[in-house]
Amino acid sequence: MRGEGSETARLAAFSDGVMAVIITIMAFSLGVPKHTTWVAVTRQLPSLLVYVLSFVLIGIYWNNHHHLLRSTERISGAVMWANLHLLFWLSLIPVATKWVGQSHQDSMPASAYGIASFGTAVAYALLVRMIIRVNGRESLVAKAIGSDIKGILSIGLFAAGVGLAFLSPWIAYALYGTVALLWFVPDRRLTRAQTG
Amino acid sequence: MRGEGSETARLAAFSDGVMAVIITIMAFSLGVPKHTTWVAVTRQLPSLLVYVLSFVLIGIYWNNHHHLLRSTERISGAVMWANLHLLFWLSLIPVATKWVGQSHQDSMPASAYGIASFGTAVAYALLVRMIIRVNGRESLVAKAIGSDIKGILSIGLFAAGVGLAFLSPWIAYALYGTVALLWFVPDRRLTRAQTG
Amino acid sequence: MRGEGSETARLAAFSDGVMAVIITIMAFSLGVPKHTTWVAVTRQLPSLLVYVLSFVLIGIYWNNHHHLLRSTERISGAVMWANLHLLFWLSLIPVATKWVGQSHQDSMPASAYGIASFGTAVAYALLVRMIIRVNGRESLVAKAIGSDIKGILSIGLFAAGVGLAFLSPWIAYALYGTVALLWFVPDRRLTRAQTG
Amino acid sequence: MRGEGSETARLAAFSDGVMAVIITIMAFSLGVPKHTTWVAVTRQLPSLLVYVLSFVLIGIYWNNHHHLLRSTERISGAVMWANLHLLFWLSLIPVATKWVGQSHQDSMPASAYGIASFGTAVAYALLVRMIIRVNGRESLVAKAIGSDIKGILSIGLFAAGVGLAFLSPWIAYALYGTVALLWFVPDRRLTRAQTG
Repeated sequence: MRGEGSETARLAAFSDGVMAVIITIMAFSLGVPKHTTWVAVTRQLPSLLVYVLSFVLIGIYWNNHHHLLRSTERISGAVMWANLHLLFWLSLIPVATKWVGQSHQDSMPASAYGIASFGTAVAYALLVRMIIRVNGRESLVAKAIGSDIKGILSIGLFAAGVGLAFLSPWIAYALYGTVALLWFVPDRRLTRAQTG
Repeated sequence: MRGEGSETARLAAFSDGVMAVIITIMAFSLGVPKHTTWVAVTRQLPSLLVYVLSFVLIGIYWNNHHHLLRSTERISGAVMWANLHLLFWLSLIPVATKWVGQSHQDSMPASAYGIASFGTAVAYALLVRMIIRVNGRESLVAKAIGSDIKGILSIGLFAAGVGLAFLSPWIAYALYGTVALLWFVPDRRLTRAQTG
Repeated sequence: MRGEGSETARLAAFSDGVMAVIITIMAFSLGVPKHTTWVAVTRQLPSLLVYVLSFVLIGIYWNNHHHLLRSTERISGAVMWANLHLLFWLSLIPVATKWVGQSHQDSMPASAYGIASFGTAVAYALLVRMIIRVNGRESLVAKAIGSDIKGILSIGLFAAGVGLAFLSPWIAYALYGTVALLWFVPDRRLTRAQTG
Repeated sequence: MRGEGSETARLAAFSDGVMAVIITIMAFSLGVPKHTTWVAVTRQLPSLLVYVLSFVLIGIYWNNHHHLLRSTERISGAVMWANLHLLFWLSLIPVATKWVGQSHQDSMPASAYGIASFGTAVAYALLVRMIIRVNGRESLVAKAIGSDIKGILSIGLFAAGVGLAFLSPWIAYALYGTVALLWFVPDRRLTRAQTG
């Protein structure tokens, strides 16, 4: 428990634990088709699709979080709370996923999914800011993050989804899917920084 | 698995695992609104609020536990059981959270929440005592903890909540919220000890 | 992932993960009282008591498993499967716990609880044998385990509970409680071996 | 979080977390017999048997994954996503397990179980390919894997099960059981490579 970085390691391990449970519980809440007919199976399809979306989104956060902490040299109490704040919002995604899976044609679940995702994106951006503040503007992590256009764009797209879901939930789903595509490639900036 | 501190590391990892699952399962038990109407969403609000409270409380324990074990040099069988005892009480918090979420206007769930929180606070205080006994009064951890006024105060506030919930559950919630505010800032004493 | 003992470390970490989830999920399945009356609360008492028993039993296995792996120098594929076999039986304990909690006055749940516990005890004994076989009769772990009277006694008591539950479930519960008391103190033999 | 292999370590730890939760949640979904009669207990037997099968399959993946990552020296962003892809399919196994447990005499759940297992087997093969691509054809891991006949055979058997389940679910179960037997012994090639 001594040694450099051990504090960061425990933070990473705890976050991984939460994300691992989130993914698995979300899968399990998919639920089993009510009957053993094609119709019953087809009724489960929307909840399977929204599970795929949520899985990819949480995978993205896990990946970026992983790269972020690898570049982080120092953490503080504020970083710990910023990280817990991120986990709080992430923990709401399974609930939103379940709701969308149940009533994917309604605006409200689609908007609620956007709120949970928006909160997560904002919390991640805050965590990055906190880490840069502790490690300094000249640190590895600060240089690696740079201007963070993708982060700001995601926040905007999720916010748009929250509102536009009331026009049509499908617009919201399209916006959320766009964010997933945007981030699918792990943050090259941090990856590069590590190899160097 | 050799090396100094590895025993402490496994204790920390196991505790983190339990706390990670507690947080996620608690979120998941929030439940999805029954209908896609504003009224149905509003009905979920109290359970969302009590989830926030529980999340913050468990976050506080995770944070303090993290700092406590970082200052700990030696552990014993008694410390292991004191830690399991803490996890036992922590594991009751999701159940209490769920009950308050379902019937937040009744005295009994509010009082039960206080019992689980009181047990957790007592168990944490016991764990601290056990660790100090093993590491000695002159150890880093013993000096860092000092007189532990916040710990004793929390126990008192939770105990008061258990009783006063029968007067009004809102008094109990106010007391529990006070404890959360009290501890929100991580234990500066231990943080200081580590930097030195 | 290189370095001596890293394989043991991952085995320990995986087992800890499973046990952490078992404990938390078991707690969560306690369920919330149906009404906010004393009668409804009292109805939850048996399931709370059997949860305490299961928590202590899993705590004992976690503790002993922890000490066992600390004394272990080498593991093999057979040890890995023996460990998974232990986790399999451990994973049935929450199910048995839930059943006893629902119908504690019936013989069958009491007997089923005994089967799960008996399987766990046998699996633990097998794991110990496998580890000794890989590490040799002159190894630290072999000397530390010795004749393993407590292990054999536990298997016998659980087996007796499986049968005697049909006479009265209370006899079975008394036997299971005896095992818990027997093991409550962590295995002194291994603890001693480590300090030396 | 620095030091060689730490990235692989976190990947392993995260995967272990997901697999630990999968195993435990799957056990818990076994459900308690509805009545305390022999008939009610016998009705749970098929779901217990399919749980055993799924437990063994996930144990095999855990074991092989463990040996795979031990031989892996370098990972990349693509490896991370290939690993998440594997976890995605693994996370569907509990759902398939639950469905088979509920209606084991129907073709559809048996076929769905095959789809989840087929996806997992393909994802594992992809992960192996990705790791070899990053580490090079002359690497320890590439030599250890060799021609991967067992992997290809498993994919074939699962695919056959998906189709033949519509002839009779029992043929499908026989095929899935064959895969389990085939892999039960951990991948000797990798085990050998490590000892050398």
